[in-house]
Amino acid sequence: MANEEAGENRGEAVATATAMPENVVYVGKKPAMNYVLAVVTQFNNGAKSVTLKARGNTISRAVDVAEIARNRFLHDATLKNVSISSEELMNEDGSKSKVSAIQIVLEK
Amino acid sequence: MANEEAGENRGEAVATATAMPENVVYVGKKPAMNYVLAVVTQFNNGAKSVTLKARGNTISRAVDVAEIARNRFLHDATLKNVSISSEELMNEDGSKSKVSAIQIVLEK
Repeated sequence: MANEEAGENRGEAVATATAMPENVVYVGKKPAMNYVLAVVTQFNNGAKSVTLKARGNTISRAVDVAEIARNRFLHDATLKNVSISSEELMNEDGSKSKVSAIQIVLEK
Repeated sequence: MANEEAGENRGEAVATATAMPENVVYVGKKPAMNYVLAVVTQFNNGAKSVTLKARGNTISRAVDVAEIARNRFLHDATLKNVSISSEELMNEDGSKSKVSAIQIVLEK
């Protein structure tokens, strides 16, 4: 239970503040527009590049976010790089499972 | 109705035969392993490169397919290119909607 609580708090933090230092936006299960807003805000705050990261089922949403941000809000932003990879997750019971991940770098 | 029938036939064809000419595998809603098998088969038939294409929610599955094929079956295959884009779809009522797409090129 303590675990669950910590997880929830962390989720909020990612969406609001901790994505700042390296201009990384972690795409999760919220509506795509939330993350588009985060990307646009980072660029407006002077970032030269913003990286979108997502894992598993949210990969599709990350691609949506990049396309919406680029086509609708940031016409001068370019797609610098798209890369895919596998990450290993530790399950709660100690077993490991692999999950696909994507990283999309937008540049102004 | 004629439309629906054609669509169904086309779906089957993609999974079995028509992906051949340009070594393209279209990733849809079937289990990822079906598409992994298609990729491995193409390489075994002498293809030097295989392209995975997916749209919308199946983008995540296309990434899974590329990662599983690479890490589990084709250790000598490399990721040549990953690109994302937007495609415009015509709805049945004539209106248009945009959908994100991904293209992943694997090379041996």
